[in-house]
Amino acid sequence: MPDGPGATASACVNYDQIFDQAIDRLHEEGRYRVFIDILRNKGAFPNARCFAGHNGPKPITVWCSNDYLAMGQHPKVIAAMEEALHDVGAGSGGTRNIGGNSHYHIELEAELADLHGKEAALLFTSGYVSNDATLSTLAKLLPGCVIFSDELNHASMIAGIRNSGCEKRVFRHNDLEHLEELLAAEHPDVPKLIAFESVYSMDGDIAPIHAICDLAEKYNALTYIDEVHAVGMYGKRGGGISERDAAAHRIDIIEGTLGKAFGVMGGYISADRKIVDCIRSYAPGFIFTTSLSPVLAAGVLAAVRHLKESSVEREGQQAAAARLKTMLSEAGIPVMDTVTHIVPVMIGDPVRAKKISDILLAEYGIYVQPINFPTVPRGTERLRFTPGPSHDETMMRTLTDALVEIWDRLDLQLAEAA
Amino acid sequence: MPDGPGATASACVNYDQIFDQAIDRLHEEGRYRVFIDILRNKGAFPNARCFAGHNGPKPITVWCSNDYLAMGQHPKVIAAMEEALHDVGAGSGGTRNIGGNSHYHIELEAELADLHGKEAALLFTSGYVSNDATLSTLAKLLPGCVIFSDELNHASMIAGIRNSGCEKRVFRHNDLEHLEELLAAEHPDVPKLIAFESVYSMDGDIAPIHAICDLAEKYNALTYIDEVHAVGMYGKRGGGISERDAAAHRIDIIEGTLGKAFGVMGGYISADRKIVDCIRSYAPGFIFTTSLSPVLAAGVLAAVRHLKESSVEREGQQAAAARLKTMLSEAGIPVMDTVTHIVPVMIGDPVRAKKISDILLAEYGIYVQPINFPTVPRGTERLRFTPGPSHDETMMRTLTDALVEIWDRLDLQLAEAA
Repeated sequence: MPDGPGATASACVNYDQIFDQAIDRLHEEGRYRVFIDILRNKGAFPNARCFAGHNGPKPITVWCSNDYLAMGQHPKVIAAMEEALHDVGAGSGGTRNIGGNSHYHIELEAELADLHGKEAALLFTSGYVSNDATLSTLAKLLPGCVIFSDELNHASMIAGIRNSGCEKRVFRHNDLEHLEELLAAEHPDVPKLIAFESVYSMDGDIAPIHAICDLAEKYNALTYIDEVHAVGMYGKRGGGISERDAAAHRIDIIEGTLGKAFGVMGGYISADRKIVDCIRSYAPGFIFTTSLSPVLAAGVLAAVRHLKESSVEREGQQAAAARLKTMLSEAGIPVMDTVTHIVPVMIGDPVRAKKISDILLAEYGIYVQPINFPTVPRGTERLRFTPGPSHDETMMRTLTDALVEIWDRLDLQLAEAA
Repeated sequence: MPDGPGATASACVNYDQIFDQAIDRLHEEGRYRVFIDILRNKGAFPNARCFAGHNGPKPITVWCSNDYLAMGQHPKVIAAMEEALHDVGAGSGGTRNIGGNSHYHIELEAELADLHGKEAALLFTSGYVSNDATLSTLAKLLPGCVIFSDELNHASMIAGIRNSGCEKRVFRHNDLEHLEELLAAEHPDVPKLIAFESVYSMDGDIAPIHAICDLAEKYNALTYIDEVHAVGMYGKRGGGISERDAAAHRIDIIEGTLGKAFGVMGGYISADRKIVDCIRSYAPGFIFTTSLSPVLAAGVLAAVRHLKESSVEREGQQAAAARLKTMLSEAGIPVMDTVTHIVPVMIGDPVRAKKISDILLAEYGIYVQPINFPTVPRGTERLRFTPGPSHDETMMRTLTDALVEIWDRLDLQLAEAA
């Protein structure tokens, strides 16, 4: 940014001012975000240390992690990563095509393909990139393609669809009639793709997968499902809602993350060999990027294999979520009705959501992030709790009592006890 | 993909066929890519094991890694990652805003800001995402912005510019006159951004940074430089070409990778606090993705700190590159003239490039990937060698002799010995 005399002339652009205004807008709306500075305590999740105070690290309980099953702390995962670190080193050193492929990547893709009963899988550096790269590339490979997208789809799916440049039809959330209406309006010759999620992470509801697949068959559409908030957590082997509902074989592309229930980092798709081969060969977001560190791939491999065999973590999570929903509800806290492990409490105002979150952290050592626009629509700001198998009864009691006290302090209305 | 009777009716789209044709096109052009299945040997880079053969793992020498300084194997990096793994676990558990921030991320951003003499830095999951997210967001924040882009810019910068939806002017590679012509053609009121790289990784040449900054000042444009093939390797502390040329203070945004010379994975930008704050607050590709694993952040922190203090690796790399260029040139192999650590050998045909690469791997245990379209323009297919401080004289002799033998076998023309 030049700041010589020329820059202040009226004819010139004042970049500083533009950037200042962009930040000011966030402050005015009460949605300027500040990172919380924490370190988790290995082996003691959800315990962590917070560096935000002035008296050194302070112990806190994390209530908003997407490490849903605490696999990021699992001894098998840690051991596998340590072994890979010592066996092959820190990074992959290149893209998958040029110097950055490894035996770990190949093994992990085979494991993920098996998890979903598909022929193949493909790793990406994140779930975001999986969605963005796959959707944008897929639509480009199908000339004239129209994508049918649930209105609550994640930002990364929206990015992929927009970046594809194809036509998009947005259907009302989980609304089959609206979806059919839109499908029927297109010519049979038009390639069609229905893109949706299984578990919607902010509301905690679930898509009617079979009914959507029925429509896909009727109108000859491909199906793409985002299972990032379900893989590892639903189905007998952790294959997600599509496994639980015995629908995986009806879905063309299943997308998942390695950074939530699997506890590490990265993303993937799983599909027929030829679809995977197309994405692998044509997606810039896959081709032109350094591949996942083999250390991460090794950790995920251990996590996926463990969760295929073990249901203890899944059952513990479901029990914790059910228990917390009951406790909050009995105390009159406005917990949203969900059928999943997600426990959202509606606040409806960004400033108030942040205030409650600040009090919880400062006074109670409870860490839950306020969820504001653009993550959720304005006016639906909320606190979103993610209880896992390691959140015990005492932690839940502390949380519930804290919320009741804060509700009282801020003159908020408690609901009728359920 | 429904394959019932309806799907085969002439009016319906045959998805299988479309995907088959997309793959067939790659085979026809000789640019269908096959992943090589290898594992690096920790502590012995560039030695690795290849699983491609039929007789178990076979030792190979890697000649195409972007782990340019072998930092992915450095004891300090390995130790830091092991410590973080045991201290906080495998993954971050969330986005930077929601549960996935950590002390490692904050420390690493401060270290990277210091590396470039900037106020702030921001981590991304990859260099690709850094470019895509930053460029697309920046252009959206500057209404009516026009981006001036070097014609050889990396695919990730092209993606970011295209995804921003803004106007783009492509200037001929490193051509200042053309850049000025395009800048002068726009109204002074139009926000302008010049996006370019410091080291172009496929040709190995370097941008005239000061001259580009002169034009940026004259026409009141912001400057964005991609230093992914330079950070860690150029400048007294590894700050890249912008440090070497004492130009960092003239660049608004410096982008770098953590997956090449720093040996791990991830990407970042470094800039004024307000620019970083804007990208942090507005870029979907930053906001909606699980943050880097703290294990990776810890490893990079060790690598960046080491390379700020130590020049042994940089000097070793430069010496190795110079030596290899001399040896190849003396043997008459058509090595391209470069001023950097990149040693490309022009082949000019995708099938022949792959054939030479296949022979090197199968018969000589030398791994170098052929570089084909879309990574380089058609007709400029090449082999790209990346010698580092660990590639010794014997390895170089083996490589040179192998190439001479293959040149002879394939009836290729050797140049006059230089």
